[in-house]
Amino acid sequence: MKPHLQATEQLIAQPGSRALIPTPAAVLDIDAFERNVMKMQARAKAAGLALRPHAKSHKCSALALRQIEAGAVGVCCAKLAEAEALAAAGVAQILVTSPITGATQAERAAALAEDLADFRIVLDHPDGAVELGAAAQGLIQVLIDVDPGMGRTGVHDAAQALAVWRAIQVQPNLTLLGVQCYGGNWQHMEGANERAAAVADGMVRLKAVIAALRDAGAPVGVVTGGGTGTFAADAAQGVLTEVQPGSYAFMDREYRDCLKADPDGAFEQALTIAATVISTNNPKWVTVDAGLKAFATDGPLPVPLTPKFAASAYHFFGDEHGMLMRTPGQAIERGERVDFVPPHIDPTLDRYEVIHLVRGDALVEIVPIEARGASQ
Amino acid sequence: MKPHLQATEQLIAQPGSRALIPTPAAVLDIDAFERNVMKMQARAKAAGLALRPHAKSHKCSALALRQIEAGAVGVCCAKLAEAEALAAAGVAQILVTSPITGATQAERAAALAEDLADFRIVLDHPDGAVELGAAAQGLIQVLIDVDPGMGRTGVHDAAQALAVWRAIQVQPNLTLLGVQCYGGNWQHMEGANERAAAVADGMVRLKAVIAALRDAGAPVGVVTGGGTGTFAADAAQGVLTEVQPGSYAFMDREYRDCLKADPDGAFEQALTIAATVISTNNPKWVTVDAGLKAFATDGPLPVPLTPKFAASAYHFFGDEHGMLMRTPGQAIERGERVDFVPPHIDPTLDRYEVIHLVRGDALVEIVPIEARGASQ
Repeated sequence: MKPHLQATEQLIAQPGSRALIPTPAAVLDIDAFERNVMKMQARAKAAGLALRPHAKSHKCSALALRQIEAGAVGVCCAKLAEAEALAAAGVAQILVTSPITGATQAERAAALAEDLADFRIVLDHPDGAVELGAAAQGLIQVLIDVDPGMGRTGVHDAAQALAVWRAIQVQPNLTLLGVQCYGGNWQHMEGANERAAAVADGMVRLKAVIAALRDAGAPVGVVTGGGTGTFAADAAQGVLTEVQPGSYAFMDREYRDCLKADPDGAFEQALTIAATVISTNNPKWVTVDAGLKAFATDGPLPVPLTPKFAASAYHFFGDEHGMLMRTPGQAIERGERVDFVPPHIDPTLDRYEVIHLVRGDALVEIVPIEARGASQ
Repeated sequence: MKPHLQATEQLIAQPGSRALIPTPAAVLDIDAFERNVMKMQARAKAAGLALRPHAKSHKCSALALRQIEAGAVGVCCAKLAEAEALAAAGVAQILVTSPITGATQAERAAALAEDLADFRIVLDHPDGAVELGAAAQGLIQVLIDVDPGMGRTGVHDAAQALAVWRAIQVQPNLTLLGVQCYGGNWQHMEGANERAAAVADGMVRLKAVIAALRDAGAPVGVVTGGGTGTFAADAAQGVLTEVQPGSYAFMDREYRDCLKADPDGAFEQALTIAATVISTNNPKWVTVDAGLKAFATDGPLPVPLTPKFAASAYHFFGDEHGMLMRTPGQAIERGERVDFVPPHIDPTLDRYEVIHLVRGDALVEIVPIEARGASQ
C-alpha cells in the first residue's frame, strides 16, 4: 500500500474525514451503493432472473462479497486474471465472460475450477474446448458464448455453436451449463424503446442458436447476459435466466446521459471522483489535480457534482491535471474540493488502487481494487 | 503480486519466454531502452544541460535508478504520491513538478525533504510557501513554477513570481534553487521549426520572469523544464540549465507521428504492448485481448508493430478487447500474438502493474510500476 494510503487509514471514522481524503480519489457513498444493490436485486427477483453482477465495474472483492450477500448468485469477471485476483480475496462464485486461448490460460482456468465452489467460463471455439479439456483436473463448467451481432466474441451462428458443442461433448471433464449472449453495443443506446428493439433482434438470433443446441441434445439451462442498460428489455423478452449488470451499483455519466429517467437509469450516483483545486493563477479557469490518469478518457467528459461548480465545464489538461472553467464573478481558492461524476465507470476505477467508502461526511472504510489492471 | 505474475516469474531467462508472457503486457526491450537513455545523456552532455528524466512516463524505481546510474542528476515526479512511491523504493533525488496545496500535502513534502538526499518541489502561489514553511522540519529546496503560456500551473508573470519570492524569503526553512517552466503544449507540435518558434516565444516570457527575480535578489540557479519534443529547441535557446524529458526512453505513437525524423525523434520504440488474438469467428476482423484498459485512449490509436499485422488497423472494442481488421486472404489463428506501439506512453503504462524487460526473445526481469496511479 502506498505511503499516502497508510496515512489516510488514520482518518477512518473521524467526522469530516471525507474532506481530507487525498485526491484524486474514488469515493463511494456506501449507503447509496447498498440502495442500488438492493434495488437491482429486487428487480431481478420480480422478473424471476438470477443476478450475477459484473465485477469488471469495480474489480473489488469487498464489493463483490456485498453483492453476493445481498442475493447475487455470484459475479462475472471479464478476464482470468480478474477472476484470479478476486478468488484469492475470497470470492468463490465466478463466471469468466471472455473466451481464453492456449494451454497456459486453460491451465489457469482449470486451477480456478479446482479452487472455487462455483467456477464457470465461456467458450466460442472448438479448440477452446480441446485446450480446456486437456488442462482439466476435474469437472469444468462451461457456457457457449453467442455473438449477439456485434462480432466481438462468441459463435456467429448455430453451425458454429454446434461445432463447439460437439467439441465439448467429447471432453469428459467439460460440462455444459448453457449459453452467454452479451450485447455490449446495446447498453448505451438512448431511449428505452431503441434498446428494447435491439435486444428483441438479438434474442431472435440467440433463440435460434439455443433451439439448434437443444435439438442436438445440448443441455441449455443457463442463459446469461445483459447489462445495466438493457435490464427492462431483457426481463420483457424472457430469454435470459441470469443477468450481468455492473454499472448500476455506481453509475456514470455515460449511463446518466442515455438512460435518463428510464427505469434502467433509476440508480443513484454512488461513486464520485474527488479532486482538489491546485492552481488559481489563471483568470479564466482553475486547475484541478485530476486529469487523464484520474478519469476514463474513452467516453464523455467528467461533470462536476459539487453544487458550487455545477455550471463549470471540465476539460482534460494533461496526465495529472484538469481545467475547470470559472463562471462569472466566481471566487475559487487553492485547496477547494470538487466531486465529479465519472465519465465511464469501469476504466475510471481501473485507474485507482482503492475505493474510499464514505457515509455522510466520514470516511468509513478503504477497500483495495484487487483486480485493477487484471486484463490478462 | 497477482497470481499470474508469480507464475510469469518462472519464465525469466528461459529462451523464447517473451512469447509466453501473459497478455496484455507492457514489454520493454531493455537494450533499446539503454541505448535511448545513453543517447539522451550524450545529447544533454553535449548541450551542457543537466538531465533529470521525468518519471511520470514509467513510474518505476528500477528504471529511474538506471537513468540516474547513466548520469541523470535525479528524476522528476508529477505528484507527491509518485515521489513517495519512488522514494520508498530507493530513488533519492526527486523534483516534484506540480504545485501542492494544503497542510497535509505540505507535511508530506516536508517528510520527503527530510528523508531524501535531494528533494525539490515547485511553488506557484505565496500561500504555498506559507504552508510549506509551516510544515518544514528542516531546509526544503523550492523552485518557482513559471507558466509558459498554457495556463495549467505556474506564475503568470513577473509580479506573481515576485509575490511568491517574497513569501519564500520570509520562510527561514525554504531555500530557492531557481525556476521551472514546462511547455506541455509544445511537445507534440509537428515540425522542428514550429516547436522551436513556440519555445523561443516561451523563453522570452521566462527570461523576463528570471530577470525580475534576479533584480529582486532571488537566486535563480536552476532553470528546469523541457521535454522529449523540445530538446533541440531548448538546447538552442540556452535558457534552461536542466531538462526533463521522459518519453524518449520508451517512445509512443504520438511522438513518432509528430517528431518523425527530427533529431528529437531519433529514439527507438523500446516499449511495446503485447496482445493475443482470442476470437476468430468474424470474417472481417479478429478480436485481441487488449482494449480500453490496455492502451491510453486520449491520443491516437495503437498501431501493430508485428510485421504480419503491419497493415491491420486496430480499433477499440470495449474495456477488454480490440478489433484487428483482417487483410485480404490473411489466415489468423487463435493465440497469435501481436505487439503494438502504445498511443501515449504515460497513461498507457499507468494501466499496468509491472513492466516485462526482455532481451531478444527472452524475458529477463519483471519490474514493478510502484508509482502507478500515484496522482495524489
